[in-house]
Amino acid sequence: MSSSKKVRVTETVLRDGHQSLMATRMSTEDMLPIIEKMDDAGYFSLECWGGATFDSAIRYLNEDPWERLREIRKRAPKTKLQMLLRGQNLLGYRHYADDVVEKFVEKAIENGIDIFRIFDALNDVRNLTASLDAVKKYGGHAQLTICYTISEVHTTAYYVDLAQELEKMGADSICIKDMAGILTPFAAKELVTSLQKVLSVPLSVHTHATSGTSQMTYLMAAEAGADVIDTAISPFAEGTSQPPTETMAICLHEGGYETELTIPLLEEISDYFKPIRDKYLKEELLNPLMMGTDPKALIYQVPGGMLSNLLSQLKQAGATDKYEEVLKEVPRVRADLGYPPLVTPMSQMVGTQAVFNVLTQERYKMVPNEIKEYLRGAYGQAPAPIDEEFRKSIIGADEVIIDRPANHIEPEWDELKEELGELAKSDEDVLTYALFPQVGKSFLEKKYGNDFSGSTNNRKTTSPDTVIKISAIM
Amino acid sequence: MSSSKKVRVTETVLRDGHQSLMATRMSTEDMLPIIEKMDDAGYFSLECWGGATFDSAIRYLNEDPWERLREIRKRAPKTKLQMLLRGQNLLGYRHYADDVVEKFVEKAIENGIDIFRIFDALNDVRNLTASLDAVKKYGGHAQLTICYTISEVHTTAYYVDLAQELEKMGADSICIKDMAGILTPFAAKELVTSLQKVLSVPLSVHTHATSGTSQMTYLMAAEAGADVIDTAISPFAEGTSQPPTETMAICLHEGGYETELTIPLLEEISDYFKPIRDKYLKEELLNPLMMGTDPKALIYQVPGGMLSNLLSQLKQAGATDKYEEVLKEVPRVRADLGYPPLVTPMSQMVGTQAVFNVLTQERYKMVPNEIKEYLRGAYGQAPAPIDEEFRKSIIGADEVIIDRPANHIEPEWDELKEELGELAKSDEDVLTYALFPQVGKSFLEKKYGNDFSGSTNNRKTTSPDTVIKISAIM
Repeated sequence: MSSSKKVRVTETVLRDGHQSLMATRMSTEDMLPIIEKMDDAGYFSLECWGGATFDSAIRYLNEDPWERLREIRKRAPKTKLQMLLRGQNLLGYRHYADDVVEKFVEKAIENGIDIFRIFDALNDVRNLTASLDAVKKYGGHAQLTICYTISEVHTTAYYVDLAQELEKMGADSICIKDMAGILTPFAAKELVTSLQKVLSVPLSVHTHATSGTSQMTYLMAAEAGADVIDTAISPFAEGTSQPPTETMAICLHEGGYETELTIPLLEEISDYFKPIRDKYLKEELLNPLMMGTDPKALIYQVPGGMLSNLLSQLKQAGATDKYEEVLKEVPRVRADLGYPPLVTPMSQMVGTQAVFNVLTQERYKMVPNEIKEYLRGAYGQAPAPIDEEFRKSIIGADEVIIDRPANHIEPEWDELKEELGELAKSDEDVLTYALFPQVGKSFLEKKYGNDFSGSTNNRKTTSPDTVIKISAIM
Repeated sequence: MSSSKKVRVTETVLRDGHQSLMATRMSTEDMLPIIEKMDDAGYFSLECWGGATFDSAIRYLNEDPWERLREIRKRAPKTKLQMLLRGQNLLGYRHYADDVVEKFVEKAIENGIDIFRIFDALNDVRNLTASLDAVKKYGGHAQLTICYTISEVHTTAYYVDLAQELEKMGADSICIKDMAGILTPFAAKELVTSLQKVLSVPLSVHTHATSGTSQMTYLMAAEAGADVIDTAISPFAEGTSQPPTETMAICLHEGGYETELTIPLLEEISDYFKPIRDKYLKEELLNPLMMGTDPKALIYQVPGGMLSNLLSQLKQAGATDKYEEVLKEVPRVRADLGYPPLVTPMSQMVGTQAVFNVLTQERYKMVPNEIKEYLRGAYGQAPAPIDEEFRKSIIGADEVIIDRPANHIEPEWDELKEELGELAKSDEDVLTYALFPQVGKSFLEKKYGNDFSGSTNNRKTTSPDTVIKISAIM
């Protein structure tokens, strides 16, 4: 749907802005005093929940994420509240059973979420269906997402087909999600133009400022008819975050676009967040280097975070001289795996495999377990077919899942509830535990005063729930 | 001249990049090892001299700026070297006599400069003629400059007239210089389109990333037919500097524009400057806050540096509660003064007058001497006529200069040479002294071993040569 001279804005400061710039460490206390103003500013939506915010709240901030959501909702009765949901992964790091997915969505809506931006790292639409169905059932807005990447199979035609499929499934809107900041302005123009020719639901565009293209990308997307763009108020904008809200609003207004945003209110919101940004800078939670621009992602067409991870893996192995070789190996591994988008967890998996292939001097001599699981189909379907000889050489005669991966997960809600027992005072508590068994339980123990460890801050005491950590690239 | 699908790039890292981000403190030592690579990269020009680099070299770095120029020239035989020249002010803070202007240009060309970007803060073209004539006489390229600002007299028609006049005067190219980062993308599109309709010489566009618009502004300028844009290699890009070279090059290439830049060489240049940037960050010469984006300049249409100066003046006076009132007074003072562009020194002068008007509770009860000089015509002609009643109320019956201000300055070269005496080993030394009498002399004494003070570092010992300091906004 193209409303040519209207572009609305999703504000990301409460979620992606601080997640991308400072590992999701903004506290609820720093958010609440400004929510009423944000509610008045004319945003299309406030992205304020999901992604890594849930994990960070219980793991580092000793805050109940459900409580944060309710407090924001109270202060923002008019503006739509939006969350990022990783399809069948919800906000955790594994696929959950459908009954947990449904319960999570039900409770998210009950606590205040309007719009669910739902994505799957492989763009396997079967990983979106359970959450989509639940959002529909409980009356939310389902924004289904295209994870944008660059490869020989990720053509404009591929994205047009995918978008049409998402709309047919019942998407209330579609989002182009460029996690890596590699969607360039002229590519955005072509993509948005092509999608708008076939879509009748609104189209959001999401990118990151990492490589310095984001403002241009949004401008071209707007010119091509995008309906919504994601921006962050200036103190939490740029670098690994989104471009500044005020800048985009003013420039779009000058170009004759209506955004419904009120500039003086944006300025007040910016003035509010500036000392908060400075405080986090001072506490070194915000590293100024995250605010800089690194165009390398554009050169290699892989996320900047992946490049620095590769370099750090090589450093640990004392083999930084192999960097160029690994960079050449990455696209070969990616081709072998059917061109997965380089987003968490695929970016880490592809990168690690490339490092192994180079360091052992024999391709696929060592294969991480996650790659084996991927080749067994546990993550879903790869964007392009995988060579069966290659697959067999890695996983042998193991059975390959070809239907929806979650079909193979038994209902687990009742069991999770029982496991947690009396510690759960609500379904929300059970969900907290379901998503993060160790950290969630320890959080609930502290919350309800059953914590006998004497610690009120678990910053350093918890062990991670997963091997593959979700980084800021999502 | 519009060559619709070709945009070339001026690299600013050696001048405006570090001038805007870290008070012009990059040393020659940090520049030289990469110049050969920069010479091969395909730039239209390397901006590497002028602006505040001369002052900073002798004042803070104990370096001979002429020597820096010669060393760069040696290593960059192919690429045009470019400097920024403040018209009749040269690189100093007063108007010089024509004979000094001519000698300076002669020596700059002899030492390696190809392109002179010449501007006057009031866009009074009479302040450009002496340097223009000298550039022509000694075989340089004269790029005459439009200082971009926003006011009721600075219409597109005004800029078109000005550009035509500059071309008629003999400009080899024209530059739109947006010192404040307030040239928005759609305004750039209109301005460049209008100028290219009438110009037959190439058009450069120069802006700053301060308010987050610069990439969009360049993209729209390119689409409208700009011939050259100014960018900074990514480690010294963004914030108060220019947008990243690599990003603009890659995006323009994708849009079908030829830039003649070689991306892998840009990457090598970027890799070279990254640790240098980090070193300056560590030494706190580079403040990470300079790298952030502040859209306030767009909201108030005045440079960000001016806003922070106003606030700091009010803080000193214990009157921060008057900030809004002062912000409203600024455009009124500017109108009284005939809408000067808010660039150094006018931005400081207008700002100070606005603060005085508010704090004394009577407009023009106190008037700084610089404003009186301005009203006497010593800076040149204001963009719009000044009310004669108003002028008289400030300067009484004082004579007003209505012809070219430098007509009133007697030749001074011989006298300066004589003053410096045997300390000068070359005309370049005399020019160093002419531009910065105190600091220049003390620098030369150290250089030639006549320094008996025992100090080899004048960071803290020199007193400023001027009352009004040139800030990073130019």
